[in-house]
Amino acid sequence: MTEEIEVIYEKLLYFYEQRKFADLRMLLLDMEPADIAQFMEDNFDEKDLLVFFRLLPKELASDVFVETDTDTQETLIKAFTDKELKAVIDDMFLDDTVDIIEEMPANVIKRILQSATPSDRKQINELLSYPDDSAGSLMTTEFISFPASITVEKAFEKIRKTGLNKEIIYTCYVTDSRKKLIGVVTVKDMLLADKEDIIENIMSTAVITAETLEDKEEVVQKFSKYDFIALPVVDKEGCLVGIVTVDDAVDVMEEEATEDIQKMAAILPTEKPYLKQSIFSIWVARVPWLILLLITSTFTSMILSHFESQLTPVLYAFVPMLMGTAGNAGGQSSVTVIRAIAVGDVEFKDIFKVILKELGASALLGLTVGVVCFAKIMLLDNLYNPITLNEAGIISFVCFISVVMAKLVGCILPLFAKAVKLDPAVVASPLMTTIVDALSLIIYCTISIAILV
Amino acid sequence: MTEEIEVIYEKLLYFYEQRKFADLRMLLLDMEPADIAQFMEDNFDEKDLLVFFRLLPKELASDVFVETDTDTQETLIKAFTDKELKAVIDDMFLDDTVDIIEEMPANVIKRILQSATPSDRKQINELLSYPDDSAGSLMTTEFISFPASITVEKAFEKIRKTGLNKEIIYTCYVTDSRKKLIGVVTVKDMLLADKEDIIENIMSTAVITAETLEDKEEVVQKFSKYDFIALPVVDKEGCLVGIVTVDDAVDVMEEEATEDIQKMAAILPTEKPYLKQSIFSIWVARVPWLILLLITSTFTSMILSHFESQLTPVLYAFVPMLMGTAGNAGGQSSVTVIRAIAVGDVEFKDIFKVILKELGASALLGLTVGVVCFAKIMLLDNLYNPITLNEAGIISFVCFISVVMAKLVGCILPLFAKAVKLDPAVVASPLMTTIVDALSLIIYCTISIAILV
Repeated sequence: MTEEIEVIYEKLLYFYEQRKFADLRMLLLDMEPADIAQFMEDNFDEKDLLVFFRLLPKELASDVFVETDTDTQETLIKAFTDKELKAVIDDMFLDDTVDIIEEMPANVIKRILQSATPSDRKQINELLSYPDDSAGSLMTTEFISFPASITVEKAFEKIRKTGLNKEIIYTCYVTDSRKKLIGVVTVKDMLLADKEDIIENIMSTAVITAETLEDKEEVVQKFSKYDFIALPVVDKEGCLVGIVTVDDAVDVMEEEATEDIQKMAAILPTEKPYLKQSIFSIWVARVPWLILLLITSTFTSMILSHFESQLTPVLYAFVPMLMGTAGNAGGQSSVTVIRAIAVGDVEFKDIFKVILKELGASALLGLTVGVVCFAKIMLLDNLYNPITLNEAGIISFVCFISVVMAKLVGCILPLFAKAVKLDPAVVASPLMTTIVDALSLIIYCTISIAILV
Repeated sequence: MTEEIEVIYEKLLYFYEQRKFADLRMLLLDMEPADIAQFMEDNFDEKDLLVFFRLLPKELASDVFVETDTDTQETLIKAFTDKELKAVIDDMFLDDTVDIIEEMPANVIKRILQSATPSDRKQINELLSYPDDSAGSLMTTEFISFPASITVEKAFEKIRKTGLNKEIIYTCYVTDSRKKLIGVVTVKDMLLADKEDIIENIMSTAVITAETLEDKEEVVQKFSKYDFIALPVVDKEGCLVGIVTVDDAVDVMEEEATEDIQKMAAILPTEKPYLKQSIFSIWVARVPWLILLLITSTFTSMILSHFESQLTPVLYAFVPMLMGTAGNAGGQSSVTVIRAIAVGDVEFKDIFKVILKELGASALLGLTVGVVCFAKIMLLDNLYNPITLNEAGIISFVCFISVVMAKLVGCILPLFAKAVKLDPAVVASPLMTTIVDALSLIIYCTISIAILV
């Protein structure tokens, strides 16, 4: 597939450079907007971008525009005539317009808003007023709704009349005279029903909804749980104000997973694809945690300095192994719990179940690791660094203790973070390392010195 | 929302325990299958499971069954009469039946296959023959297709006649007489067209497809790129054999993200939700990497032992800080690149772009970290452990070098893993730690001893 696309891209470029615009258009007509957008980003600078964009078949133009990245969009908007901008904006779905506006500088936003029709402008401003992470910011206001009293035939008429500009027409919403959401009916239900059936009799009243201010992570969980292609969004009075469509939910799901992965790796979340990030923005995302963790490592240096005169070289040599094992063990637990929270498998009320499970698993793991550690020390490390049975025993025992300690810290931290409404991924992962490093070192030094020295 | 569900669950339990089955059914009718499934799993053991399941309204039974977890499904199947099993299986979509079969023991599979109609059985066996991670294993064979020559009206007739048992009816596929896929037409297109229009004239021939053997990760990327609700799957001859629906793509997306997160945290991927995993299965998933990393830590112990007689206590005290910083820096890069590969932003051919970017970012980051490190040592560590300017300078310089080295290793490893068709997440994350630990330690010891001792 990827190769096919490469071939098409080469043809496009050839047609463009040879000014064979009729061939170019023919080829474009058979392409997906996302692929055309990628082609433009990869091949054109400012001037050619606009020339190429003007060659796009009318019906594709705004779809392609939506799929290009923020920089390209900004370049294009600045180059558009007022008429061109208006054509693109009019053709776009409102939620896409809002997404674009959220990324643009003020002067560009002004131009976009001026191009929109007054009624669109009103809806855009409404959508813009919702917090960034809410269902409201994710939804579109372009959905199909009708009263419960009409027939299936009338409903189809309404869909035919207004459906062209709606993102999802397959799920229709039934509202009362005050716009309160009272039911849902799918086009499938309608197709399988009789023309004369009344909507009220075929609609489903068991409607799962999201509230405008609901966190978008929860919204996405509903899609993965209930297999919807659209989810209605209601205000506090239960009135239907918009819908979230599955394609936006899919994007959010991917973004949220990426964000969680970044946070666990001590990176500030970024939205741009890696190759589009500037070196400076990579620096900005990575430097805070690197510096913070550097400074908290003062604890380990302090602890080592404190015990310096008493630790034997043999004991010193196993410090990295011990801290590494504890860090790995803790990381396994914290990451497991953070992900379980993110996908909705675990909540704070499960804390005792989680602790019990981790206690059991860590005892088993600590035991295995301890035994293997003992064998490894006697069989492997002993070869280059003579060690007594006593020393090996102590080191392995501390290994066992550290694994259990690290796993408990690792599972409890994210749950507490969640309980006090902090982000489990941010708080737990890097903080966990610092705590586990310091604790395992203290345990090691205290126990080994007390017994051996 | 969660609270609402809790209240409903309490009511359900009350009705069930009081044997108020009519009320129970009324309540169930207004619930989502996924919520009912969760209720059953949380509250019932073997006997009650079956009793409760028999109370479910007919039209909900198989939907609820599909949503329960594997253990519950197995319990139920074993308890079902042949007739009950047949009713459930007949009502299920084929891809769901296949998913269930893949998790069941042989004797249960036999019962399921015996309950299926001969034609279903044939299709199930076909679906089962595709590799686990392929588009074929993900697809369903229940889709709507028709020839290009019929009218919109005829097409609607076909949908009405056959649509009830299809998962997605909104995208229909146009095939020629040899089942070759030649176009796609949506119900939206048909609703907006004239009754008498010929499908050929309104269908889209630019069809994005997946091949049966294509990796399901690539299939999922197509959903996030192109915003489909269904993707057709074709065999090598281009004949339509099935479709993948967006709800299954969403599940795969979540699973794949979880798997990648687990691999990065040195855990073997598991499919069950955390709270359903036994302590033993947690042990199985976590012990291999813990042991492997324990054993590879022999390198760091060896290196430390080797330099033991020459390292001063002051230099010793900064070993954890240095290895920690290098590990964090490398982790940031490797995780970034692993995720970029997973979502399709980066491929092996981008390796030089990636290296350049990481070189730039790491120089900047290394410089910042080095300067802060110097300040921290002189202002903070100096308080409890007197350090010369010389020592602080060397340590900070090694910090700078280590960050650059770690970032290069971190970005190159996953790309090489991808190039030789290994899993970037598995190979890169834990292996990266071992390499970066050993290298940073060698750099530190060599440089500091050469200059200071």
